[in-house]
Amino acid sequence: MFVHVYTGNGKGKTTAALGLALRAIGAGKKVFIGQFVKNMDYSEINSLKLLPNNKIEKYGVSCFIDRNPEKKDYEAAKNGLKRIKEILSTNEYDIVVLDEINIAMYFKLISVEEVLKVLKERNKNIEVILTGRYAPKELIEYADLVSDIKEVKHYYNKGILSRKGIDK
Amino acid sequence: MFVHVYTGNGKGKTTAALGLALRAIGAGKKVFIGQFVKNMDYSEINSLKLLPNNKIEKYGVSCFIDRNPEKKDYEAAKNGLKRIKEILSTNEYDIVVLDEINIAMYFKLISVEEVLKVLKERNKNIEVILTGRYAPKELIEYADLVSDIKEVKHYYNKGILSRKGIDK
Repeated sequence: MFVHVYTGNGKGKTTAALGLALRAIGAGKKVFIGQFVKNMDYSEINSLKLLPNNKIEKYGVSCFIDRNPEKKDYEAAKNGLKRIKEILSTNEYDIVVLDEINIAMYFKLISVEEVLKVLKERNKNIEVILTGRYAPKELIEYADLVSDIKEVKHYYNKGILSRKGIDK
Repeated sequence: MFVHVYTGNGKGKTTAALGLALRAIGAGKKVFIGQFVKNMDYSEINSLKLLPNNKIEKYGVSCFIDRNPEKKDYEAAKNGLKRIKEILSTNEYDIVVLDEINIAMYFKLISVEEVLKVLKERNKNIEVILTGRYAPKELIEYADLVSDIKEVKHYYNKGILSRKGIDK
């Protein structure tokens, strides 16, 4: 099965992965979502709880947009990747979403080489979706499908903050 | 509330809208999805049936990728837009997805002016998401958020057909 990458600075990367999860669950597939960097609960959690065949885990401590990553952030991401390596070696799930893992690589919480190794050694029956801006070129080369989502216009630029049920 | 457009030739437009629907439903919002051009059942239908506060309708007769649009296609799209106009004038839904409506405009099944009129006259408490490649420039100008999804790489190009639970 294939490796998808949703990258770029536009809105739609995580939501595209969630939409794929919704579709896959509807087809009876089993979905695992690992969220890197993020530690807060997004609204999708409530919907996913009502659906069968899915599990979400978070591998972030707290947001570091306004600070440098600290030891705890590196550890959380490393443990996350270790967990993903396990998941990808079993046949428990058909689809595995690695949400914002590109950001974890960009901030060097985990290395591109480690992530590629985990992908290459995975059970090849699993479809893997990686999201986040700044996807590294080695990942783009390895992936089977890459969508680059460009921000043409965003209401954030008008000072609109993140809204529950739309952005989070 | 805002108008989002997901356009471009890359994978992720409809799935981003579905992901937003999943998130919005999780936040207790009510979601309506109108699918233009499409007439087949996608796997997401099964998942959405298990979730509250949503409704899907289809305004397509059959796929016309390999033929010219016929009278029945124009009628289906026109009736769809009429229905959307009604929906957008009430306060029954918080989020209204107009899936592939850009394609309906591109093939001139409905005009850009008619769609913009419906958007402008809508109940402004409703967030509207429009998807499909070839979004017209007048729509991009009017929208608050526009993501252009570029295909960097797609497994279709290797001859892989549409797969259940992933692409449909």
